[in-house]
Amino acid sequence: MPTNRQILLAARPEGEPQPKHFRRAETPAPEPGEGEVLLRTLWLSLDPYMRGRMSAARSYARPVEVGEVMEGGTVSKVVASRCKEFAPGDIVLARAGWQDYAVSDGSGLRKLDPARASISTALGVLGMPGLTAYTGLNIIGQPKAGETVAVAAATGPVGATVGQIAKLKGCRAVGIAGGPDKCRYLIDQLGFDAAVDHRASDFADKLRLACPRGIDVYFENVGGAVWEAVVPQLNDFARVPVCGLIAHYNDAALPAGPDLTPQLMRAVLTKRLTIRGFIVRDFAAHAGEFERDVGQWVREGKIKYKEDVVEGLENAPQAFIGLLRGKNFGKLLVRVAQE
Amino acid sequence: MPTNRQILLAARPEGEPQPKHFRRAETPAPEPGEGEVLLRTLWLSLDPYMRGRMSAARSYARPVEVGEVMEGGTVSKVVASRCKEFAPGDIVLARAGWQDYAVSDGSGLRKLDPARASISTALGVLGMPGLTAYTGLNIIGQPKAGETVAVAAATGPVGATVGQIAKLKGCRAVGIAGGPDKCRYLIDQLGFDAAVDHRASDFADKLRLACPRGIDVYFENVGGAVWEAVVPQLNDFARVPVCGLIAHYNDAALPAGPDLTPQLMRAVLTKRLTIRGFIVRDFAAHAGEFERDVGQWVREGKIKYKEDVVEGLENAPQAFIGLLRGKNFGKLLVRVAQE
Repeated sequence: MPTNRQILLAARPEGEPQPKHFRRAETPAPEPGEGEVLLRTLWLSLDPYMRGRMSAARSYARPVEVGEVMEGGTVSKVVASRCKEFAPGDIVLARAGWQDYAVSDGSGLRKLDPARASISTALGVLGMPGLTAYTGLNIIGQPKAGETVAVAAATGPVGATVGQIAKLKGCRAVGIAGGPDKCRYLIDQLGFDAAVDHRASDFADKLRLACPRGIDVYFENVGGAVWEAVVPQLNDFARVPVCGLIAHYNDAALPAGPDLTPQLMRAVLTKRLTIRGFIVRDFAAHAGEFERDVGQWVREGKIKYKEDVVEGLENAPQAFIGLLRGKNFGKLLVRVAQE
Repeated sequence: MPTNRQILLAARPEGEPQPKHFRRAETPAPEPGEGEVLLRTLWLSLDPYMRGRMSAARSYARPVEVGEVMEGGTVSKVVASRCKEFAPGDIVLARAGWQDYAVSDGSGLRKLDPARASISTALGVLGMPGLTAYTGLNIIGQPKAGETVAVAAATGPVGATVGQIAKLKGCRAVGIAGGPDKCRYLIDQLGFDAAVDHRASDFADKLRLACPRGIDVYFENVGGAVWEAVVPQLNDFARVPVCGLIAHYNDAALPAGPDLTPQLMRAVLTKRLTIRGFIVRDFAAHAGEFERDVGQWVREGKIKYKEDVVEGLENAPQAFIGLLRGKNFGKLLVRVAQE
């Protein structure tokens, strides 16, 4: 059997993950039992939610245990099959984790058609991040033509999709991103109406100027200083879908005071805000309409996407550490093996 | 003309209002012009929102200016009429403010039928506080039979109505109130399933014990330490209608740190909470069904109410100051003149 390189959780980080929190292991690739397939990982998706899985704190999903393979979505190739639904050569969306090989009984696998779309998009614009953007914006954000939609981490696969769908719905799209290159990309390539660099010292002022009619929908996936600057710009009856808080994932303690909670709750009350958290799987029932709509928009070039590809499984830990620092530019993917 | 005693805003309070922030004035009662009525105040409602009107901070309504009569809902008697829709002797719901007399062109007045319900209830269970409870609970809270509904300021006119409607819908009703008398009243008189004294040193523990299956709807009208204790008890997909934050209305500054905002937002995300602010007038379209439902429940004795009556307009400032300290027990009303 071939060797299965794996990346395991070596220790739970306090604060920012470091290389020492990951450990490489090699085992023989597993053999598929009756009814099972052997999967070869082609693409591994790196996503902010994985930071939560590294911690023991109660969340919406079970943590990865120390010594276990890091969890993750993959695009994998079926290399051996004892399951009649899959044949060798099939390309599938899977959750094989940070490793070369995995066996699966087929549950949770989804066959991909390489003729229909580049297979890596099943981990990005046409996958979990895209569905997050589509459902959170439509179901919770409910944007109306003429409204202003703001989104942070706007060059990431969720944010970029949110802003482009907002444009397709006739909204003003305002992206928040780190650094001038990302901001330029939002306007020049994705057609956002405005882009604001959250690293600028006058970020809050720039955000206000970028939203002359306030913000009606703020798609929250960041938290922290960006959220603080957004709240005063929210209009009456604004909607805030919350799908991530990447600015806080490495927090080892609460920030110093004062406690801004009463200020936030006062805004909720006086502006009649709706703040609603969601996890993409809550909206799994909308996958069909998502695939139809966003699939078509991508084929027509109305929604563009950008991938940030890291070569080699061994580089996944460093790439993931960089993701939490905002170093990626586009959907972060690890090419584990050539298609 | 008779003398019109008035209570004016004398100065804007920083922190807790004091008697010096109010001023008594006497003027001749105004004379109604063509199309107008002269109103004699019988009952003046004192409500927490009035603290907001004393401040210049931007909110959902214009502040009372220094030197103006304090705003307020009243039940008033028409004592002179040059308006064909109203006759002397009519009892109306009005917004005549903290004074004996006011003129009105009839807009915004609503005739009350003393045979139908005690007229003071138009300021409480059958008025703005009742509508706040009914709409916030039903439209935002969406309680389902078997769920747990928690509400603070639970002996107040909003909280008491929220809890009793929750019971009628088959929910477990948990009231939070200040002191053992109020807690006993919730259980013995209103039929709440549990009552928790927020002044107890082990309040958070007691709240947890009172909600063995967590909290599905928390009707927020308080904020502060109560809200902090509630958040960890909220279940996945819990709904939080926010209609008031009385614990903060006298805040002159933000509380000391740490900043709990990230902790709150993490709960929003991982538990997929919905937090939504509202002002009762946003739901004015539901007044008809409210009057039908709650009117019937009150007549049938299924919803009880309690009034805390202060005698004499001159005592309104002190009563209002006490309201912000939780000194009232039931709907706080000032009897300005005998019916």
